[in-house]
Amino acid sequence: MNEKLNFGSDYTRGAHPAIMQRMLETNMMQTAGYGLDEISESARRRIREACGCEQAAVEFLVGGTQTNAVMIDALLKTYQGVLAAETGHISTHEAGAIEAGGHKVLTLPHRFGKLAPESAEKYLADYYNDANHDHMVMPGMIYLSHPTEYGTLYSKAELAAFREICDKYGISLYVDGARLAYALASPESDVTLRDLAKYCDAFYIGGTKCGALFGEAVVVPDPKKIPHLFTIIKQHGALLAKGRLLGIQFDELFRDGLYERIGEPAIRAAESIKKALREKGYRLYFDNPTNQIFYVMENEVLKKLEEKVEYSFWEKYDDDHTVIRFATDWGTTEEETRALIDAL
Amino acid sequence: MNEKLNFGSDYTRGAHPAIMQRMLETNMMQTAGYGLDEISESARRRIREACGCEQAAVEFLVGGTQTNAVMIDALLKTYQGVLAAETGHISTHEAGAIEAGGHKVLTLPHRFGKLAPESAEKYLADYYNDANHDHMVMPGMIYLSHPTEYGTLYSKAELAAFREICDKYGISLYVDGARLAYALASPESDVTLRDLAKYCDAFYIGGTKCGALFGEAVVVPDPKKIPHLFTIIKQHGALLAKGRLLGIQFDELFRDGLYERIGEPAIRAAESIKKALREKGYRLYFDNPTNQIFYVMENEVLKKLEEKVEYSFWEKYDDDHTVIRFATDWGTTEEETRALIDAL
Amino acid sequence: MNEKLNFGSDYTRGAHPAIMQRMLETNMMQTAGYGLDEISESARRRIREACGCEQAAVEFLVGGTQTNAVMIDALLKTYQGVLAAETGHISTHEAGAIEAGGHKVLTLPHRFGKLAPESAEKYLADYYNDANHDHMVMPGMIYLSHPTEYGTLYSKAELAAFREICDKYGISLYVDGARLAYALASPESDVTLRDLAKYCDAFYIGGTKCGALFGEAVVVPDPKKIPHLFTIIKQHGALLAKGRLLGIQFDELFRDGLYERIGEPAIRAAESIKKALREKGYRLYFDNPTNQIFYVMENEVLKKLEEKVEYSFWEKYDDDHTVIRFATDWGTTEEETRALIDAL
Amino acid sequence: MNEKLNFGSDYTRGAHPAIMQRMLETNMMQTAGYGLDEISESARRRIREACGCEQAAVEFLVGGTQTNAVMIDALLKTYQGVLAAETGHISTHEAGAIEAGGHKVLTLPHRFGKLAPESAEKYLADYYNDANHDHMVMPGMIYLSHPTEYGTLYSKAELAAFREICDKYGISLYVDGARLAYALASPESDVTLRDLAKYCDAFYIGGTKCGALFGEAVVVPDPKKIPHLFTIIKQHGALLAKGRLLGIQFDELFRDGLYERIGEPAIRAAESIKKALREKGYRLYFDNPTNQIFYVMENEVLKKLEEKVEYSFWEKYDDDHTVIRFATDWGTTEEETRALIDAL
Repeated sequence: MNEKLNFGSDYTRGAHPAIMQRMLETNMMQTAGYGLDEISESARRRIREACGCEQAAVEFLVGGTQTNAVMIDALLKTYQGVLAAETGHISTHEAGAIEAGGHKVLTLPHRFGKLAPESAEKYLADYYNDANHDHMVMPGMIYLSHPTEYGTLYSKAELAAFREICDKYGISLYVDGARLAYALASPESDVTLRDLAKYCDAFYIGGTKCGALFGEAVVVPDPKKIPHLFTIIKQHGALLAKGRLLGIQFDELFRDGLYERIGEPAIRAAESIKKALREKGYRLYFDNPTNQIFYVMENEVLKKLEEKVEYSFWEKYDDDHTVIRFATDWGTTEEETRALIDAL
Repeated sequence: MNEKLNFGSDYTRGAHPAIMQRMLETNMMQTAGYGLDEISESARRRIREACGCEQAAVEFLVGGTQTNAVMIDALLKTYQGVLAAETGHISTHEAGAIEAGGHKVLTLPHRFGKLAPESAEKYLADYYNDANHDHMVMPGMIYLSHPTEYGTLYSKAELAAFREICDKYGISLYVDGARLAYALASPESDVTLRDLAKYCDAFYIGGTKCGALFGEAVVVPDPKKIPHLFTIIKQHGALLAKGRLLGIQFDELFRDGLYERIGEPAIRAAESIKKALREKGYRLYFDNPTNQIFYVMENEVLKKLEEKVEYSFWEKYDDDHTVIRFATDWGTTEEETRALIDAL
Repeated sequence: MNEKLNFGSDYTRGAHPAIMQRMLETNMMQTAGYGLDEISESARRRIREACGCEQAAVEFLVGGTQTNAVMIDALLKTYQGVLAAETGHISTHEAGAIEAGGHKVLTLPHRFGKLAPESAEKYLADYYNDANHDHMVMPGMIYLSHPTEYGTLYSKAELAAFREICDKYGISLYVDGARLAYALASPESDVTLRDLAKYCDAFYIGGTKCGALFGEAVVVPDPKKIPHLFTIIKQHGALLAKGRLLGIQFDELFRDGLYERIGEPAIRAAESIKKALREKGYRLYFDNPTNQIFYVMENEVLKKLEEKVEYSFWEKYDDDHTVIRFATDWGTTEEETRALIDAL
Repeated sequence: MNEKLNFGSDYTRGAHPAIMQRMLETNMMQTAGYGLDEISESARRRIREACGCEQAAVEFLVGGTQTNAVMIDALLKTYQGVLAAETGHISTHEAGAIEAGGHKVLTLPHRFGKLAPESAEKYLADYYNDANHDHMVMPGMIYLSHPTEYGTLYSKAELAAFREICDKYGISLYVDGARLAYALASPESDVTLRDLAKYCDAFYIGGTKCGALFGEAVVVPDPKKIPHLFTIIKQHGALLAKGRLLGIQFDELFRDGLYERIGEPAIRAAESIKKALREKGYRLYFDNPTNQIFYVMENEVLKKLEEKVEYSFWEKYDDDHTVIRFATDWGTTEEETRALIDAL
C-alpha cells in the first residue's frame, strides 16, 4: 500500500508512538466519559501551563472543521459574521459548515494566505461608516489561520495589531491552529502559545496534523467569554463519548513540551527539499517558513514524478506548468526526504 | 483510578484488542484521508456483506449524536420533522442537535422506550386529517433506537409494520443502533443486520458502545436516497481527516462476524446480575433482554453500594427509593460480574 | 362572497376605519422606510406611554409567527430552548418556525391552554437537578400567550409568579399577545399593558386580530436586553420596507386608548352568544372570558348550521359530537350576533 | 413632512390609487385567511395569464428579503449555495438572511450589477474540475436581479444563456424582480413576463417598489419543483394571515396589464432628469435604462442640493466628489421632475 513516497498531506500517518503506547496501556481502564476523566484533566493542566494561562477553559474536539464551526458559533451572536481571508479554510474547504450554523463568512483579500490587519480594519471602518450597515451582516470576529493555508505565519506584531482592532470594535479574535506545531517549530516564528493566549479570545491547538491520531484542543483564555461551551459542543454533535482518547493525545503532546518540538522534523525536511529543488533549478511558487512547499513544475516532469511520489495539485499555472504542493509532517524521516530529493 | 467496579455505562473502556493491534500495526502507514483509503473500503465491503446489501452506501462517523444529526438532516426536507419516542435519544440527550439543524422532534409516548407502530400511524393519520396541517410540521421520518434507551428491542414484525407505515405515508425509517451489538447478541432478538437493511432507509451500526474506540457506521441500503452524503457529512463537521481509523474499527468488528458476537459477554453478565439481584430480593424496575439493568433500590443500600460500584442514577422512585442502572459491555469480565454480585 | 355569517376566526376582516382613513390620507406622502418615519415614531411614543415605559424599544413586525420566531431567536442563546404549553401557538401551528431558528420548544402540560407557574418551575428545578443536564437543551425563556389559544387569561399574580421564576433561573419571560385586545377588554382581566411591561422581558401587542390590517408591535421594556434588534428583524426577512404602514396601524390603535377598548364588541358578542347557547341547551366545552367560544355540538345539528355560518372545527368529541369554535372580533356587529343566535 | 423633494428611493410612497380604492371597498368583507380567498385566486389567475403559464404556482409574500430567503431555501438542498453577483441584494443588504437559512452566497464579479453567464459557467466548471469539490459548497442555483441593483437589465439572450448553463449543471435559475415593473417599462428591455416564466425555475414580481403597498408575487412555472411551498412560507414566518391584502395588490396591478405600464412614468422621469443633468454638465457615473440615476457630484454642490432634495449616497468617488443616486418611481409626477431639474 505504501510503495510510493507520500508527500500529499500532513494527515496521512497515525500518531506519535508515545500516544499509541499510552492508548494501549490505558485501553481497558474504565473512566468517566465526555472529557470528565483524569487524563483529560491532566492534559488540560499541561496546556494551561504551556499557555501561561491558569484560568483558561480547555476543551477537546475531534477535527478542524468541527472545531471552527463550534467555536465561531460560540463566539458570534446570531446576526454576526466572521471576517476571514478569502483563502481561509472556513471560506473554502468546509463545505459551508459556518453558513450551516447561520453565519456569513465575510471574505477579504489575502497575501499568500494572510489577512492584513489594515484590510480588516478598513472593512470594519467602512461597515460602521455605511449608512445602511444595519441591513448588512455585522462583523463579529476575525478568523486567522496560523500557519495559513499557504504555510505563511503571522508575526507577534501582527497578532497584536489584530487584537487592537478587535478591542476597538468590540469583536473577537480567533486563531485556527490546525498546523500550529509547524509554526511553533519554525525558526522564523516569534509567536508562542503564551502569545496566542494573550491575544486571542479563543484558538485551537491542532492535533490531527501535528502528531495526534485526531483531535484539536480549544483554548479559551477567559472562560466567561463562552458560558456553557460543553453544551454547545454537544449540540454540534462534537462531544466525544470516550473523551479520554482526546485527553491522551494532548496529555502526551504536552508532556515535556513535545508539541513545541514535534514539528521540527517537518521543517528540516521542508528546508532540505526546497534547497534541493532550488539547486536542481526548479521554480519556487512562493516561499513560506513551515511544512508546505509550493513549486511550479512542468507537466512533463510531473508525469514521471507521480509514478514515485504522491503530492497535491495546487493550481494550474499555464498550459505547460502546474503548481504543486509537497507537505512534510512530524513523522517525515530523513530517508523519505532523501528519496524525494533523489526522485526529483 | 480503577479501584471501584464500574458499571456506570457501556463506553467506559477502550477498544477490542484486535482493533488496538491493527491500529498499532498500521500507525505509520500513509494513506488517503476522509475514508477514501483501502482499509475503509475493506470495512465497507464487510459491512455490505453482513447486511446482504451489495449496493449500500456505508459511511463512517465519529459519534452517535453527530450521526443522528447528519442522517436526520440528510433524510428530511427542511420543513419536515422526525417522529420519535419521547424517550428517544434525539428527544432528550442530544442538547437540541436535531433542532439546531432546523428540524422539530415530534415526540410520541413510549412503552419502556419503544414507540408503537400504531402510535406513529395514528399521528400520521391525524396530521393528514387536520384541516390545518399545512401550518404544522410535516412528519418526514420515523426514528427508532434499537435497542432503545431502556434496553428493549423491536421485533422483526414491528420493524415490518413501521416500514409499511413509512411506505404508506412516503416517509423514511431510520434506526439508531448505538447499542446494536447488544441487540444482535440477545437471544430474544429476531432482527438481523439483513433485516435492518431490508426495512430501513438508513441505520447506523454503533461502534463506540460496542467494542470500538469510537465510530458509527451508517448504512444507506439505497444510496440514491441520499445524494452527496459525503458533502453533507463534511458540512456538519463530521468528516474525520484520518478516516482510516474508523475503517480499522469496523474492518476488525466485521472480520469473521465479530460484531454479531461481541455483545455476548455483556448479555451473559446482565443475566447473571439480574439472577443474583432477584435471588437477593431486589426489585426489578422493568426487564429487558440486553445489557442495561434497571432496579429499584433503597437509598440506604445505595449509600453503601456506591463506595464499591459506579452505577447510573436513572430516576427518583419515591422518597426512600431510587431507580438505578447497571450497564454491562463487551469487555465485562466474569470477575467483574462476580465482584458486583458480591458487592450487592 | 359574504352571504354566510362568518364566525370562523378573528382575522377575516380588514382594519378599523380610522386606520383605513389614515392610510388613504397619507398614501402619496413620501417618507423614510423601515420604520424610521415620523408616523412610526409617533406610534412608538403612544405605545410607550400606554405601557408606562418611556425607555422601551418598540418595533413593528408584520405577523405573529414571524414575531415569535424573531423574538425567541433574539432572546435565546443558540443552545437554549423555550418553555411553552403544549398547546402554545409556537408548539403547534407555526410549522416549525422556532426549530427552523435552531431552538427546541420544550413543551409542558396545559390547563385550558394555560401553563402553570409550578409546572415551569418544576421543569427548571428538575433540569438543574439532572446530572446530565449539560447534555440537554437549556431552558432559556418562558413563552406565554395571553389570551391563550383557548381564550383563557393569566392573572397578574400568575404573571408575577412567572417573573419570579424567570429571575430565579436567569431566563426571559415573553408574552405573545396576538389577541391581547380581547384580554384587555375582558372584565375578568386584571392585567394591564403596564403590567406586561413590568413583568416581561418582551411581549407583543397583536394588531392583525385586533383591528389592524396587519402588524404586531413588539415591546422590549429594557432595550439593552436585545442589542441590534433592527438587524435581527432584517435577518429574519421581517423588516417592512414601507414601515410607516405599520406605524399607521398602531398610531391609530393607540390614539386615545382605542386599543384598550377595541375588543369590547367582541367580548359583548361572545357573552350574548354564550348566553343564548346556554339557554338553548347547548353544551359548553369550557368557558373563557374572551372572544372565543367552544361548544360541543351534535354532528346532525352542525350539518344544518354550516349552511348558514362559518365556524372552526376544534376537535372530535365522540362519534356523534364535535367541538367547534366561534370567534367574535372587534368588528362583530349586533346584527351578526343576533343572526348567529337565530341560526342556532 | 414633505417639503423636500424626495428622490431617495422607490418605496417612499403608498400604493396606486386603484389598490387603495379596492382595499377600502373590501375592508369589512370577511374572507378566508392565508391567501385562500377569492381575491387572491383572481390575482393568481391574472398573473398566470400574463406569464402565459396556466399551471404556475403563484404565492404572495410581503417583502423582498423575505421572498429571497424563502425561495432560495425552497430551491436549494441543504448543502448547496447560491451563485450571485457580489453586488446582488442577497450578497450585501439582507443582513445574512440567506446564511441564516444555512446557505452560502457564492459571489462572482459583476459588471454594473450584472453577472456574466460566462462567469457563472466558469465557476461551475472549475468547481467540478476541482479534486476537492466534495469539501466545498455545491452551487445549486443562480440568482439574478432584474433590474439589477445598478438599474441594468439582462437581455433575453442572456437569460437563455443562464438557462442553458443551469440545465447543463442541473441547477435552478431564480430572478429577483423587486423592481421588475421598471424593466418591463423600459424601451431597452426585450424580456417579458412570459420570458421569465419560460427561463426561470422561480422568479418574483415586485410589488413593494412598483405600485403596491407591499407584497411580492412568487411565480413557480413548474410547481412540482417546490412541493409544500405553503408550509415552507409558513415555516419562515412569511405567511400573511389576511392574505387577501396581497391578493388585492396584485389583482389590481394585473388588471388590464397595469403592471406592465406602471413603471413608465418612472422611466420618463429618469430620462428627463438625465437629459437635464447632462445639459447642465454633470457627470454621469454609469448609465442604465431604468429608474435609478447615478451621478458623480461635487461635494460642494451636494451641500446645497440636500437642502431641497432627498437622494441616496451611493459611494465616495474622491475627496471632493461623491456618487449619488436619484430614484424615480411609478408615482413620480412631472411637477416633481421639473422641480428636481430646477433644483440642480
